Amino acid sequence: MSVTKPSLKLTHAAALKALAEAVAYAESIGVPQNITIVDDGGNLLAFIRMDGAKLLSRETSMSKAITAASHRQPTSRLDPALELKLAIAGGGRLTNLEGGLPIIFDGICVGGVGVGSGTGLQDIEVARAALAAIGAEDQQP
Amino acid sequence: MSVTKPSLKLTHAAALKALAEAVAYAESIGVPQNITIVDDGGNLLAFIRMDGAKLLSRETSMSKAITAASHRQPTSRLDPALELKLAIAGGGRLTNLEGGLPIIFDGICVGGVGVGSGTGLQDIEVARAALAAIGAEDQQP
Amino acid sequence: MSVTKPSLKLTHAAALKALAEAVAYAESIGVPQNITIVDDGGNLLAFIRMDGAKLLSRETSMSKAITAASHRQPTSRLDPALELKLAIAGGGRLTNLEGGLPIIFDGICVGGVGVGSGTGLQDIEVARAALAAIGAEDQQP
Amino acid sequence: MSVTKPSLKLTHAAALKALAEAVAYAESIGVPQNITIVDDGGNLLAFIRMDGAKLLSRETSMSKAITAASHRQPTSRLDPALELKLAIAGGGRLTNLEGGLPIIFDGICVGGVGVGSGTGLQDIEVARAALAAIGAEDQQP
Repeated sequence: MSVTKPSLKLTHAAALKALAEAVAYAESIGVPQNITIVDDGGNLLAFIRMDGAKLLSRETSMSKAITAASHRQPTSRLDPALELKLAIAGGGRLTNLEGGLPIIFDGICVGGVGVGSGTGLQDIEVARAALAAIGAEDQQP
Repeated sequence: MSVTKPSLKLTHAAALKALAEAVAYAESIGVPQNITIVDDGGNLLAFIRMDGAKLLSRETSMSKAITAASHRQPTSRLDPALELKLAIAGGGRLTNLEGGLPIIFDGICVGGVGVGSGTGLQDIEVARAALAAIGAEDQQP
Repeated sequence: MSVTKPSLKLTHAAALKALAEAVAYAESIGVPQNITIVDDGGNLLAFIRMDGAKLLSRETSMSKAITAASHRQPTSRLDPALELKLAIAGGGRLTNLEGGLPIIFDGICVGGVGVGSGTGLQDIEVARAALAAIGAEDQQP
Repeated sequence: MSVTKPSLKLTHAAALKALAEAVAYAESIGVPQNITIVDDGGNLLAFIRMDGAKLLSRETSMSKAITAASHRQPTSRLDPALELKLAIAGGGRLTNLEGGLPIIFDGICVGGVGVGSGTGLQDIEVARAALAAIGAEDQQP
């Protein structure tokens, strides 16, 4: 019997780098964003709200990040027929909105990044910029 | 790097005037209302519940005001295909109900007004009366 | 057996007048305040946050108003030996801070007013100005 | 009647810089920290949890930041005789713990920084490093 198993954690240095490059990308496309990074327990690791980003999209970016970390896959892959039931039964945090990506290294999910305030497509692009900044596996949504 | 950027805040004198004239308008059409004014951070600035207004519509008026301030546009402009997902992932405050308008001066959103207890159309009319009272930009929903 | 008993409710016209005169008094002493008026069910009836008032004192003003309405007496009359236990067991809203007064007409408590952001003494003074504005019984704290 | 009054907002560029330098300082003293920056409405602007920081201190850092922004002064200046009553009546966010400083430019409070996971003194030092990074007024706690 194995009592423990090895895991990986994202460092704060990586989280800050991911934030900074995601911000730079969002600036380059002219779309202010809320960018949330959570660990594999869904706990907040890093966050930035850009000038002019929608205030309430902080919560949607958080829900996207937590969902991606929880399910270890991009958000928006749930069965649309189930998505609202899952969202409600999941305490509100389980979302099928676009813009959440898991952060995966060596096949291990160390957390999630969620982006909110743009269109779904813009949100995904900025989340991918965060992953690219730290060399995480690219997640095609 | 700019460390700060200029902004505007609504005064309490203006908030009280907006409440009073919105109440007068609601009385003139015989529809008791909950009227909520929040600042640009979604924090309560002023509120009145009129005699006979529906109790729970206080919360809807608050959600409308916060959404309008957050998104800097009238409520009810979200994509209907996303509105429920956004409402849930946004923590319940992000609503697509009619009756929330941003409060904008010189192109700067200083908050939002949300009205609830009438029909959607009545709620919008009363919110517009609040904006007119203080000379804010008229927001066609 | 009496099935119902007569009661009284505060009108929104009175609530707005109380707010306006409490604001005028607070301006006259140079102390920005949060002023909350609730009905006898502890439900929000009217509110104003003045320019420069402390943001978190909105919650303390609310707790004071609800406590005064609930106990039908000024806040700060609880036994200090019990006040924290009561505050916690009371869901956080039951407070012994100064600055909450019941709104009483003809011996019937129709609600409470709570004020927060100044010193305890300033908060009481502004709450008394609200009562005076509408001819409610003066409550010596 | 003035309808609006001028204000200032902290930029996200400044918030990211403050985070980065506060992290560097915390690393230099070997104390992992949670560092929270909120705007003047108490809304989250930027956050980082350092490797090894205490998980629940995220909430204390948030409460410290919000309190400093709300009261426009360093935390730990409340009357100790009132601090628990204020904390409870203030909804839990109003704290007298050390480690929260307001962010002030030109006499205008644009938000607050809160730090939690070290001793009170370490928390204050890291918060001051955040202020120094962006040239905000130094707040002696």
